[in-house]
Amino acid sequence: VGTKLPAVGTTIFTVMSALAAETQAVNLGQGFPDFHCDPKLLDAVTAAMAAGHNQYPPMPGIPALREAVAAKIAALYGRSYSAATEITLTAGATQAIITAVLAIVRPGDEVIVLEPCYDSYVPNIELAGGTVVRVPLTPGTFRPDFDKIGAALSPRTRAIIVNTPHNPSATVWTEAEMRQLEALLAPTDVFVISDEVYEHMVYDGARHESAARFPGLAARSFIVSSFGKTYHVTGWKVGYVAAPASLTAEFRKVHQFNVFTVNTPMQHALASYMADPAPYLDLSAFYQRKRDLFAEGLARTRLKLLPSGGTYFQCVDISEVSDLGEADFCQWLTREIGVAAIPLSAFYGNGFDQRVVRFCFAKKDETLRHAIDRLAKL
Amino acid sequence: VGTKLPAVGTTIFTVMSALAAETQAVNLGQGFPDFHCDPKLLDAVTAAMAAGHNQYPPMPGIPALREAVAAKIAALYGRSYSAATEITLTAGATQAIITAVLAIVRPGDEVIVLEPCYDSYVPNIELAGGTVVRVPLTPGTFRPDFDKIGAALSPRTRAIIVNTPHNPSATVWTEAEMRQLEALLAPTDVFVISDEVYEHMVYDGARHESAARFPGLAARSFIVSSFGKTYHVTGWKVGYVAAPASLTAEFRKVHQFNVFTVNTPMQHALASYMADPAPYLDLSAFYQRKRDLFAEGLARTRLKLLPSGGTYFQCVDISEVSDLGEADFCQWLTREIGVAAIPLSAFYGNGFDQRVVRFCFAKKDETLRHAIDRLAKL
Ligand SMILES: CSCCC(=O)C(=O)O
Ligand SMILES: CSCCC(=O)C(=O)O
Repeated sequence: VGTKLPAVGTTIFTVMSALAAETQAVNLGQGFPDFHCDPKLLDAVTAAMAAGHNQYPPMPGIPALREAVAAKIAALYGRSYSAATEITLTAGATQAIITAVLAIVRPGDEVIVLEPCYDSYVPNIELAGGTVVRVPLTPGTFRPDFDKIGAALSPRTRAIIVNTPHNPSATVWTEAEMRQLEALLAPTDVFVISDEVYEHMVYDGARHESAARFPGLAARSFIVSSFGKTYHVTGWKVGYVAAPASLTAEFRKVHQFNVFTVNTPMQHALASYMADPAPYLDLSAFYQRKRDLFAEGLARTRLKLLPSGGTYFQCVDISEVSDLGEADFCQWLTREIGVAAIPLSAFYGNGFDQRVVRFCFAKKDETLRHAIDRLAKL
Repeated sequence: VGTKLPAVGTTIFTVMSALAAETQAVNLGQGFPDFHCDPKLLDAVTAAMAAGHNQYPPMPGIPALREAVAAKIAALYGRSYSAATEITLTAGATQAIITAVLAIVRPGDEVIVLEPCYDSYVPNIELAGGTVVRVPLTPGTFRPDFDKIGAALSPRTRAIIVNTPHNPSATVWTEAEMRQLEALLAPTDVFVISDEVYEHMVYDGARHESAARFPGLAARSFIVSSFGKTYHVTGWKVGYVAAPASLTAEFRKVHQFNVFTVNTPMQHALASYMADPAPYLDLSAFYQRKRDLFAEGLARTRLKLLPSGGTYFQCVDISEVSDLGEADFCQWLTREIGVAAIPLSAFYGNGFDQRVVRFCFAKKDETLRHAIDRLAKL
């Protein structure tokens, strides 16, 4: 056929979920909850459908949901976005990111990604004809290294993709780090795609440092988030982008010819559900408790816990448990121990193996206990 | 910002729907029904959500819906596709088309489009770095002109996008025309993107000539269709692609990094609903009656009806009614007569104006009567 993405196979999340299903392993690989969302949210979908909200919504999304998103960002991060011209609803965060990339990256433009990074970023840039410039996060700590990022900037740099809270490392950027990014980009025209899908999962009293809080970043950023992660409905595929009007105009040109628009009844349900901020305000406490439950169990194994400051992921160092590489370890762990995990090497272009794997703790307590019982064999 | 799509504004469908809402005109512009879908389909969504189907489905879609699609294609068009490796569910037909384009079109590749054509095709090709080669359908009749298509083929031709039943002209390709396309492409490696979203709306005893019926086409085609059009739920944004395994493999590489996957509860609902073929088998009769109702009303005006052999569109020649160009006429008709329509010029790259506009008759009988009362003033 003449493939355009020779390096791309099936995404690791699909591969590991399929293996988990086949082997009846506890699936702590792909990031999604195994518990139910609030039934009120489902009732709201049923009500929206019954009210006849089943035809095309406006291309950028229904006004009520765009307004709810703008109000949330203003309340939490202190920046006001125009619902009319600066917020666009998307078919999940993944579609938001590729659409931003297609909207701004021209053939030959360079785009900086910080590795390890989510596996869609690099193929997204390649499909736009851009050149991927990979900058490693600091080995061991996964903190951004601004010397390295600065050195990677060139006159051809068009954008940088950042992600906090960070998948897969579970680190959360600090205010100081965000300011350093702001200062570094100040003399440039570089755009930022800020993947903030785990914005409502930040632990130990830290706060999410949205790009929206930093005027020098917000003015150049596509801020991407996800209702699926926040409301435990990853299968609904609804997300959003907040960006200054000039960027949103370019975004929507591509969006309207990619998916055109997003599922109508789910938009109405989310709009009414967002009237109550409690679900997202309480989410960090909800997941911190799960993180702690899972970490206490892991502490009884020889897996070494890395800090989990945000997201619903827990990384562990496997070097005292196994001589296998990450990918082989994850296969072995799934088949022999009955727990699926994701190798961090899947988040690097060169398959870099640092003996670290990622577990997802967005699971029922009983699922986490079940996994811990199995992992205790290690 | 440095736009990548300088020629692109807001899609005409959004512009005209907004104007119709603002002026309280009867909206016969954008193609969507103003009546409700079968309540059984809504109940099936509610049941799927209650059963917990709210997390990520498998990346290519749930097996039950892929199998239902494969069974439908086999029954209607006599070609068997593997649900596992040849059917992929998409976030609507628009997302299916851009994904196919991004999957196969490389920078510098030529892609043939037949004008007038749906307004996403050209920007899709441009975003992939391809060169658009525009071939007009025969003026007046909108039939494909195989001499012109043949002359447009070159060693750089990578694909051709075809669409039957055709939006906006409402023509339906004949078996002979499909065979001519098959013969023309036989000596080439050209892929076909076959937009068949109106496959279940074909009138006067004609049948839909899916590319799936023609082995020489099916082997090189991405066949795209839509549940939204067939089941009166355009806002659900679920469609599909059927393509040989080698093409599907490339398609899925891009799909997984575009939307990753498609709304889970709607997939489950559609899978159970498809068990009964009656809704799509009866659809042509349902819409033919509406076409006739609308045409009878229009016959009392000086608008000249063009044949409508399929789709839910009716084109009319405005030349005896107005001296305005198509776009101005549609503005005027919306504001002064209170009926919104779409100018055919929006489907041409050069804005070619042949004094023809398109109405959508996927409306309640009372809406159509209301529109006719207003159009009687012409
Ligand atoms: C889109 S499937 C992957 C879900 C996820 O975000 C992850 O596991 O990292
Ligand atoms: C995606 S909005 C346009 C709907 C449609 O297919 C049309 O009106 O042609």
